Amino acid sequence: MHTIADVQSSKDLRNIPINQVGIKDLRFPIAVRSRSGIQHTIAAVTMTVFLNAEQKGTHMSRFVALMEEQTQELDAESLHALVQEMLTRLDSPAGKISLSFPFFRKKTAPVSGIQSLLDYDVKLSGEVRNGSYLHTLQVLVPVTSLCPCSKEISQYGAHNQRSHVTLTLQCRADVEIEEVLDLVESQASCQLYGLLKRPDEKFVTEQAYENPKFVEDMVRDIAALLRQDERIAAFTVESENFESIHNHSAYAMISHG
Amino acid sequence: MHTIADVQSSKDLRNIPINQVGIKDLRFPIAVRSRSGIQHTIAAVTMTVFLNAEQKGTHMSRFVALMEEQTQELDAESLHALVQEMLTRLDSPAGKISLSFPFFRKKTAPVSGIQSLLDYDVKLSGEVRNGSYLHTLQVLVPVTSLCPCSKEISQYGAHNQRSHVTLTLQCRADVEIEEVLDLVESQASCQLYGLLKRPDEKFVTEQAYENPKFVEDMVRDIAALLRQDERIAAFTVESENFESIHNHSAYAMISHG
Amino acid sequence: MHTIADVQSSKDLRNIPINQVGIKDLRFPIAVRSRSGIQHTIAAVTMTVFLNAEQKGTHMSRFVALMEEQTQELDAESLHALVQEMLTRLDSPAGKISLSFPFFRKKTAPVSGIQSLLDYDVKLSGEVRNGSYLHTLQVLVPVTSLCPCSKEISQYGAHNQRSHVTLTLQCRADVEIEEVLDLVESQASCQLYGLLKRPDEKFVTEQAYENPKFVEDMVRDIAALLRQDERIAAFTVESENFESIHNHSAYAMISHG
Amino acid sequence: MHTIADVQSSKDLRNIPINQVGIKDLRFPIAVRSRSGIQHTIAAVTMTVFLNAEQKGTHMSRFVALMEEQTQELDAESLHALVQEMLTRLDSPAGKISLSFPFFRKKTAPVSGIQSLLDYDVKLSGEVRNGSYLHTLQVLVPVTSLCPCSKEISQYGAHNQRSHVTLTLQCRADVEIEEVLDLVESQASCQLYGLLKRPDEKFVTEQAYENPKFVEDMVRDIAALLRQDERIAAFTVESENFESIHNHSAYAMISHG
Repeated sequence: MHTIADVQSSKDLRNIPINQVGIKDLRFPIAVRSRSGIQHTIAAVTMTVFLNAEQKGTHMSRFVALMEEQTQELDAESLHALVQEMLTRLDSPAGKISLSFPFFRKKTAPVSGIQSLLDYDVKLSGEVRNGSYLHTLQVLVPVTSLCPCSKEISQYGAHNQRSHVTLTLQCRADVEIEEVLDLVESQASCQLYGLLKRPDEKFVTEQAYENPKFVEDMVRDIAALLRQDERIAAFTVESENFESIHNHSAYAMISHG
Repeated sequence: MHTIADVQSSKDLRNIPINQVGIKDLRFPIAVRSRSGIQHTIAAVTMTVFLNAEQKGTHMSRFVALMEEQTQELDAESLHALVQEMLTRLDSPAGKISLSFPFFRKKTAPVSGIQSLLDYDVKLSGEVRNGSYLHTLQVLVPVTSLCPCSKEISQYGAHNQRSHVTLTLQCRADVEIEEVLDLVESQASCQLYGLLKRPDEKFVTEQAYENPKFVEDMVRDIAALLRQDERIAAFTVESENFESIHNHSAYAMISHG
Repeated sequence: MHTIADVQSSKDLRNIPINQVGIKDLRFPIAVRSRSGIQHTIAAVTMTVFLNAEQKGTHMSRFVALMEEQTQELDAESLHALVQEMLTRLDSPAGKISLSFPFFRKKTAPVSGIQSLLDYDVKLSGEVRNGSYLHTLQVLVPVTSLCPCSKEISQYGAHNQRSHVTLTLQCRADVEIEEVLDLVESQASCQLYGLLKRPDEKFVTEQAYENPKFVEDMVRDIAALLRQDERIAAFTVESENFESIHNHSAYAMISHG
Repeated sequence: MHTIADVQSSKDLRNIPINQVGIKDLRFPIAVRSRSGIQHTIAAVTMTVFLNAEQKGTHMSRFVALMEEQTQELDAESLHALVQEMLTRLDSPAGKISLSFPFFRKKTAPVSGIQSLLDYDVKLSGEVRNGSYLHTLQVLVPVTSLCPCSKEISQYGAHNQRSHVTLTLQCRADVEIEEVLDLVESQASCQLYGLLKRPDEKFVTEQAYENPKFVEDMVRDIAALLRQDERIAAFTVESENFESIHNHSAYAMISHG
């Protein structure tokens, strides 16, 4: 084996460093640790490092080997360790790991009390850049939005729809996924459930009608709460409403810090 | 050039014919002829032929060459001719061409009269099988659906959402795309528009509330109309409602003929 | 609660039965039982039943409730039981459950012996129609294909690419997912691995070059094997090659039984 | 009409401005002007403006109205005018329009000289921020990449695959889409074609083999050229190789300026 040429390790003469190089969209089973316990899910993993100007190529197999060998449940702390281990193995001063996965939690229907799972899209990223470590938590929360204008101007009814609210948080201290879900769901016209009995359906219908929100209201009300949280160094909050009266989306974004 | 081996034309000994072989998802600009005139759009094109047991491979470049050379606006008639030309060039007794593309039409807002485009997904397929020619028209129409149960049981409001109604029609005679759009939109809780002024928004909100439909109602009401149309040899009607109170869809399908 | 109207259970007068009605794309964590053990994964679940002409609507919440309550690892047998239970709860003579999920298995690199996971897309479907039960196993296997024509006509090299081979099997008896993976991977120009060291990369490069296959060869060689398997009542085998020299795919399909 | 409440125009008390609010993913037919003439295509359009803290909501219909009324062929100049007109109509000091669309150009096969279209993904963005106007051109170019390591260590053959090279350019002066396509295609192991005859296939197979490139080489060679272009204020170049020996991608990115 030692006689096989190592092309990647040869010297590069173009004098151009590479910001990020590695593997993208490796599908991998992971265990996520969160406030509600450990859950098994499937991640799309992207792992990249900085490559200095002198080196022709990175060692792609080391990224996959690292995922194969790691046995920790994923949380903010173990992700930090994983990023450090990647930098060591790839001999690089900077790099990033992102894991995107569906996350579930058990919800309780508002009247019947019946329980069911709801699915969210979560992305955890850890990055070393310029010697500092950055942890980013992104959560996509599907909710109901009901249009205040439609309600106000119509004799009855109001158009409503599913919306995707996406929070991207740069955290100084640990922020639980479930906290973010709670925060977003508390600010929607109404939250979603996997399973609703008729009294629950009555409840969510009326709650959404009592609680109309423009796409602008959604991002403002969430931003107001995030700005008070000292653990959050910077955030972006986006809402995309899949309008039930159009074939395009309404969209709003607030970025802070 | 004549000295380059033609591997595809060599003899195959496995004695297994291939039902369909060709190219898939060739992106190509096309001009579509319809009742409202000619429109330029972009299609994803799939072209396949039957390959007899004796031949090792088809000639992939001929499919692309055919698309490059064809200059006709696409309609039911020109698609038929295109399929026949493909079979001639590929020397095959059977084959199929499908073109999927966004289709637009100008709509007029119900109160203000303001005009705007709405986009639909259309798929035209022509196939020769067992010596017969089959023309299939598939149209995906986005509409508003409003839940009758939610309306009935709630003091005010009713959950509604965008729905995708998909009709797949095997036609004996020409059926215009616009006819299908009209048919589906007439049966929805309300139809969609690109552009609505406030009086229009009031109108569509109230119309949807006055006209609640389960996913079951949508497919039944459309099926009832399609069954009366003698030009339609067979059909499937599907509706997928992107429920505003859940994170999954409600779905119904009726197949006939 | 008992005073809330049950709109779905009211009488329908249109006299049109519905072939399939239910929920679509419910995302749900599942445990899959296979030859290599039990694995946790995330499924997209579609559950539908036949609805007779007299009934206005099905009971959507019962589908989700069934998923919430079921505790069995998924395999052919437990899927059959789940379909039966769905028909009982929905009081319907016919219906279908499909679960699509990523499936992983540990593979061993051909020279170094290093192990890594590879991911596949699997769909299990169970359906009762006309009183009979049908089990369908669909597996998408990513492989390498290398073009025989390109190899033959070129002085050196040959274009190759990732291909998706999809088998859809109607099974009379139990067929393990891993058996299908083995069958497809044995017939490709070369199989894929998550992790390859340099001696492995040399091996797979040379193996693919020694083993060129047209998209036609791939489906024929697999069909030849499937036709000999008495457990398989009917099958479709498709291959889509994401051509490295074009921006479209080559495609072939054989359907049998 | 004047008696209908204008909820959006009411006063907002939360004191939170919104960075971007508007419409997302409006599908719309456009005509694009480029060096090779005018072509008709279909865009996904996103249009947003800054909303000051005092205003409750933007006027969503004005975005769509603007697209409906605009009649110019799209190029850098007309996009700039469109952004300015949007800011005027929405009464905002900042905003952004992005249009993503498939773009085609006629290519000539390297030996036979036969012509065919190839499709690319282009995104044009114009933004006013802090009083300055920024024009961004993004182009995704599909190419062939052939692995230098695989070639070096193997007795014959080398794994190759389709790659997506994406350039995102902030331009001080006009940069034609076709220039970017030329630049990227000149640096790939080989470029793609819609239609190749056998002598062409021999040519591209051998050319790719003679011209191996790691994902790192691709982004470095392109970055070296971009850095010399004074019209380009800043750029990002990314390459994603859909590895034919793995089921994940190799990825590299260089960002500059």
